[in-house]
Amino acid sequence: MTVELISVGTEILLGNIVNTNAAYLAEKCAALGLSCYFQSVVGDNEERLSMVLKSAVQRSDVVILSGGLGPTEDDLTKEVAARVCGRQLRVDDDSMERIAEYFAGRDLAPTENNWKQAKVPEGAIVLHNDNGTAPGMIIEDERARVILLPGPPNELIPMFEEQVAPYLERLTPEVIVSQTVKICNVGESRAETMVKDLIDSQSNPTIATYAKTGEVHIRVTASAETPKEARKLIKPVVKELKSRFGNDIYTTDENVTLEKAVVDLLLANDLTLVCAESCTGGMLAARLINVPGVSDVFKAGFVTYSNKAKRKSLGVKKSTLQKYGAVSKETAEEMARGAAFITKADVTVSVTGLAGPDGGTSEKPVGLVYICCNVKGSVTVKKYQFKGNRAKIREAAASAALILLRGCILEYFSKVTFGKK
Amino acid sequence: MTVELISVGTEILLGNIVNTNAAYLAEKCAALGLSCYFQSVVGDNEERLSMVLKSAVQRSDVVILSGGLGPTEDDLTKEVAARVCGRQLRVDDDSMERIAEYFAGRDLAPTENNWKQAKVPEGAIVLHNDNGTAPGMIIEDERARVILLPGPPNELIPMFEEQVAPYLERLTPEVIVSQTVKICNVGESRAETMVKDLIDSQSNPTIATYAKTGEVHIRVTASAETPKEARKLIKPVVKELKSRFGNDIYTTDENVTLEKAVVDLLLANDLTLVCAESCTGGMLAARLINVPGVSDVFKAGFVTYSNKAKRKSLGVKKSTLQKYGAVSKETAEEMARGAAFITKADVTVSVTGLAGPDGGTSEKPVGLVYICCNVKGSVTVKKYQFKGNRAKIREAAASAALILLRGCILEYFSKVTFGKK
Repeated sequence: MTVELISVGTEILLGNIVNTNAAYLAEKCAALGLSCYFQSVVGDNEERLSMVLKSAVQRSDVVILSGGLGPTEDDLTKEVAARVCGRQLRVDDDSMERIAEYFAGRDLAPTENNWKQAKVPEGAIVLHNDNGTAPGMIIEDERARVILLPGPPNELIPMFEEQVAPYLERLTPEVIVSQTVKICNVGESRAETMVKDLIDSQSNPTIATYAKTGEVHIRVTASAETPKEARKLIKPVVKELKSRFGNDIYTTDENVTLEKAVVDLLLANDLTLVCAESCTGGMLAARLINVPGVSDVFKAGFVTYSNKAKRKSLGVKKSTLQKYGAVSKETAEEMARGAAFITKADVTVSVTGLAGPDGGTSEKPVGLVYICCNVKGSVTVKKYQFKGNRAKIREAAASAALILLRGCILEYFSKVTFGKK
Repeated sequence: MTVELISVGTEILLGNIVNTNAAYLAEKCAALGLSCYFQSVVGDNEERLSMVLKSAVQRSDVVILSGGLGPTEDDLTKEVAARVCGRQLRVDDDSMERIAEYFAGRDLAPTENNWKQAKVPEGAIVLHNDNGTAPGMIIEDERARVILLPGPPNELIPMFEEQVAPYLERLTPEVIVSQTVKICNVGESRAETMVKDLIDSQSNPTIATYAKTGEVHIRVTASAETPKEARKLIKPVVKELKSRFGNDIYTTDENVTLEKAVVDLLLANDLTLVCAESCTGGMLAARLINVPGVSDVFKAGFVTYSNKAKRKSLGVKKSTLQKYGAVSKETAEEMARGAAFITKADVTVSVTGLAGPDGGTSEKPVGLVYICCNVKGSVTVKKYQFKGNRAKIREAAASAALILLRGCILEYFSKVTFGKK
């Protein structure tokens, strides 16, 4: 079964935004066992969108359009799709109600335009949108199934996961089951080299690697007649990966993020955590706090961007800052120790670095970051040199802090366990 | 003049990588005054690539292909382009020499495959590659100019800047200039309604609206013979937008983000800032700290996710938390006042809310957020009800805090100025 992606949006054509939706959908469709041969981007233009959609429905089994479902005049994906599939638009009462609720909940009045979003092509399956006003829809045309999704990723992603993926799963006679093995501490090319023999020798399950910031994900995908059989094919491969990557695998569960793995590890060991951040400036805390239930472990976070804040909030010594500088092993260590002293948290982590664009020297170039983990007084400081712009360096530092945190907690408990023997 | 982009590569079709080349090329082409109406992605497959290229040369003046120029069997962009344009491949001596040099400079021996890269379609303009072995090329077909570029961004970008951009500049008589007006406090459909008459009555400049979390961007784009003339066409439209949206416009500079506008406002008024975050958990601080130069205003941030942290770090009263709860007007206000008392910052902002997924009640549903701004003792608390998942609620709250912060600072100074009269 083939799938084709059409992204609708002038911002993509103008290069204002990178098309991350297409990458997301392509990855998810591949995991569902659909073959993607074409992706297109087209603007909010009736004639051109119509041209692209017409050739898509002829050559592909499933066509996923994203974007152009907004309330404005520009947005005409739904109108064009309805026309290409020979359907009339009618008001969907349920969507009407949801839009009214959406605005009522925000103490806002919908404009005339918003009601346009309640119209759907007749006979279409309506996909409700919990994160915006535009419903998605599926038109089951005789040539292809045409799926329309809203453009904003925070609306598209949950709609795809909760409503489209289960729908697509039912279409394919074979079931496709994937399992993702998530790895930290190993670069992409090394991970690829480590599994090249498996990739080359296998066709079911297939094995594919994906590079993420600070992580590599390996997806093992099997097709079979039943989920049970597919899982049976996957099992030995995951076992083999576990033996090759060992502790560098932080999860084999698709839904577990690195931050969730760290929170789970803290919970399992009944540890409390405090973050002290300089260059990441709250990013690390923000990622951890995105994990539901984090309140049982996360005590507090300090964003100590200035030297004064490092001194006042964390008790970093003036002499340390003067002698070694804010971006140093010594300052990182005092930040983590100070955070533990003040809050009595079991685990503290500190990040201090030069995110740029200015302020770099030959001795301390932009991208230099020190991270310190303090697990019940057992302290580890690590030096990093990241590349890229300010945002990229900060993201890489936040990921590295999570990875170091995980490593230090594991190490601490392996020693404790060893000591007990 | 129109341009069409074709990205060749299975990694993009599988969603392994995000198509940043397309975003880069689209933005550069728009700046050169070329209109991009179509972008496609296709794999290393002769038949499908040929199909896409054939329709591209028929409907566009310039076609830029990226990727598939490598030395392996898979790479067949050049072969397909030569066939579609009816050209033979011949060895290009200059490219042959460059490949030999490239390997000599790296103490490596080229493989047989590498010499494949020295072949170019007859009559093509060869674009030399200083960062790799694959030369680029321009085939001046009678239907369209077909430009082939290597896929790796560190080869594609310099080749485009140094050789393709000057070539394209010579082709286009017109220049395109855009200006973006960024608005807060106004929803997308309302903004659209407010400028509908302008959108409908104008074709040069054109006016388009873009929705962002908590913001709306309006882009005004003009084409003219010179940049100066284009700017002259844009000026009255931007003036008109300013008169309609007034203070809700936070910038007319494409490169200024909402957080930068807030930082600039603080800098201009010589104010220091401290954030006290509960549900956003560092997101607000992280956004502010992404602004280079923020160190002159940002004093410190507190992530006080637990009640204990709210009490210990910010001095929120136990009785307030017990009587009104952590998510309340009263707690938000004590957080902001406490942060000011402790740090002596001029401006403090606090966020407390229920990000979910659990913990909501009918009285305090998930998505309920209180934000408090304290500008030199002048305190404003606002209640919000956001929808969506945990991540979306937190993002919306961080944006709302920046918008409220901006509004409160502006209001404070308008009163101060008024008082002086």
